[in-house]
Amino acid sequence: MPTALGLAEKVLAGDRRAAARLITLIENGDESVRPELAELHHRGGKAHIVGVTGSPGAGKSTLIHKLARCWRQRQRTVGIIAVDPSSPFTGGALLGDRIRMQDLATDQGVFIRSMSSRGSSGGVAKATADAVRVLDALGMDIVVVETVGAGQSEVAVMDVVHTVLVVVVPGLGDEIQAIKAGILEIGDIFVINKADRDGVEATQRELEMMLELDDRCRKGWRPPVVLTVASKSEGIDALVEKVDGHWDMIRREGLLQEAERQRCRREVLELLKHKAVLSLLSEYGPDDFDALIKAVADRKMHPHEAVEKIMENKKERKRK
Amino acid sequence: MPTALGLAEKVLAGDRRAAARLITLIENGDESVRPELAELHHRGGKAHIVGVTGSPGAGKSTLIHKLARCWRQRQRTVGIIAVDPSSPFTGGALLGDRIRMQDLATDQGVFIRSMSSRGSSGGVAKATADAVRVLDALGMDIVVVETVGAGQSEVAVMDVVHTVLVVVVPGLGDEIQAIKAGILEIGDIFVINKADRDGVEATQRELEMMLELDDRCRKGWRPPVVLTVASKSEGIDALVEKVDGHWDMIRREGLLQEAERQRCRREVLELLKHKAVLSLLSEYGPDDFDALIKAVADRKMHPHEAVEKIMENKKERKRK
Repeated sequence: MPTALGLAEKVLAGDRRAAARLITLIENGDESVRPELAELHHRGGKAHIVGVTGSPGAGKSTLIHKLARCWRQRQRTVGIIAVDPSSPFTGGALLGDRIRMQDLATDQGVFIRSMSSRGSSGGVAKATADAVRVLDALGMDIVVVETVGAGQSEVAVMDVVHTVLVVVVPGLGDEIQAIKAGILEIGDIFVINKADRDGVEATQRELEMMLELDDRCRKGWRPPVVLTVASKSEGIDALVEKVDGHWDMIRREGLLQEAERQRCRREVLELLKHKAVLSLLSEYGPDDFDALIKAVADRKMHPHEAVEKIMENKKERKRK
Repeated sequence: MPTALGLAEKVLAGDRRAAARLITLIENGDESVRPELAELHHRGGKAHIVGVTGSPGAGKSTLIHKLARCWRQRQRTVGIIAVDPSSPFTGGALLGDRIRMQDLATDQGVFIRSMSSRGSSGGVAKATADAVRVLDALGMDIVVVETVGAGQSEVAVMDVVHTVLVVVVPGLGDEIQAIKAGILEIGDIFVINKADRDGVEATQRELEMMLELDDRCRKGWRPPVVLTVASKSEGIDALVEKVDGHWDMIRREGLLQEAERQRCRREVLELLKHKAVLSLLSEYGPDDFDALIKAVADRKMHPHEAVEKIMENKKERKRK
C-alpha cells in the first residue's frame, strides 16, 4: 500500500536518507508518519534487536563499535541506535571517540543514529521502538540499541529488544548491588568489559553467584558472563557467538512469538497512557485543570481527589 | 476530620509505628489509605524536602548519614526515604555500612524508610510522594529522598522535592557527560564527594563550566559546587549551609508556591495516566485487549492503530 509521504517504500527499498528523515519525524512526534510506521511494522520483523545497557564509563560504545565490526566481517548489516546522549555515536562525547568510530560511519552496511532521551521515559521508549522498525525495514540484520544506566527508562527501552547485554567493569561492588536491584532480571548476557583491570575475578564470581539464584537458569537459558577488553578488541568474537546464540535459542525454542507479544503489549500500554491523558485533559479543559492543580497545591485537595474529578467529569458528560 | 483507619491522626500526633504502617500500605497500593493521605496532605506542607541523587558508588548514603547527624546537632528532625534498593538504609548493602548507620536508627528524631523501586517509574514516584507526606506529617523538619542514577525514574522521584543534590565523584569524565545530559537541569546543589581523590580540580572545573551555561544562573540561583569527604565528615557543615540556604531562598523569593504547583501538576498527571488506562482497559475487556495485542504482534496492526481502537470503542459506547 503506497503511503502519503512515500517514506515507507523508500526505506524498504534501502534508502538511507529516507530512513534518517523518518526517524527525525518520529523524534519530533510528527503524527503524519503513522501510516508509514504501520506499513513498516506490517512488513518488518526480520532484524535481531540487541540492547546494550550499563553505567557511563563501562565502555558500551567502544564495545558496540567492535561488535559492529565483527558482524560486518561476517557479512551482516548493523543498525545502531544510541539513546544515551553521552555516547560517542551521538556526537556528545570526546572528539577522539568520534574519530575512532569513523570506519563505521563510511560503511554502507552500517546505519548509526542517536535519539534524544529527553521527555518522558515512555516517550523515549515509544520513539525508540519506531526507530527500530525503521532500521529493521531498511534491511539491517542486527539493530543495536545503546542506553545508559540502571533506571526505569532503561528498562523501558530494553522492552523493545530481543537480547539484552548488561556491561559492567571490574571492581565496582556498588555497581553489582545496583545490578542486583533491577538489571539482573533483564540481562540475557553479562559483559565484564575492561577485563584487564584488577578485580575482574571477584566481579565475575559475584555475577555468577547472583545468576545461580536466577530463575531463568532453570528455564534453559543461563545468562553467560563474557570478559572483554573492547579497546583492544579482545573477547569480541566470543561475545558475538553468545549474542547470535541467544537469537538462535529464542527462535528455536519458540520464545520469539511470546516475546513479541509482551513487547507489543508494553508498547500499546505506553501509547495508550499518553493518548488517554491527552483526551481526558482536553475534555476537562485547561482552565478547569489549572484550577484543580491550584486546589491541590493549596492543600485543599489530595491529588487522588483531583484525578477522580477529572475522571468523573468525563462520566457526567457521557450521561448527557 | 477523623479517618476510617485513624492512621492520619496518629501520624500527626507523632506515632512512628502508625507512620511505618501507613507507608507499607502506600507501597502495597492499598486504596483504603486514600482518606488518610488526603488528611495528611491537607494538614501538611511544613518539611523541607531534599533529594539526593547520583551514581552507585558516589557515596550518597554516607553523605546523607553525615548530613542527618549535622542537622540533628542543630536540633532538627530528619526523615530519610531511600528509593535506591542498594542503599545501606534499605538493608540491601554491606553489613558494615548498616552498622555505621546504627546511631541514626536509635534516634527518635530520625525516621528511616526504604521504598521498593520496582514497578513503573510513575508508581515509584507516586508512592514516594505519599511517603514524603507521611514523614512531613510526622513532624520531620527535613525529609531526604535518596535515589540512584541518572534515569527518568530519578527525575520523576526528584519531582517531589524542593532541593536536589547531585552527588558525583572526581575523575569520571563520562559521568559528567551523563550529568550534562539530564541531571544538570535538575541539580540545585552539586556535591563532589570523595574529594580527597585525584582529579577533583578537573571535575570541579568541568562542573563550574557547565553551570556557567545554565539558565538559572541568570535567574538568581547559581547552583553551588561543594566538596565533601563524607566518610571523614569533611565539608558537611558547608553543605548543610548550602542546603538550608536554598530552602531560605525558595521561601524568600516566593518560588515555593510555584514549585508546589508544578509538583502537584506532575503528581496529578502521573496518577491520571494510571487511572485512565485501567478504566479504558476494563471498558474494552481483557479478552478483546488480548486479541488486539495478538494482531499487533502478528504485524497486522501497528500499536497506534490498537490504541485508536481502544479509544474509539469507548467513544462508540458513549454514543449509544
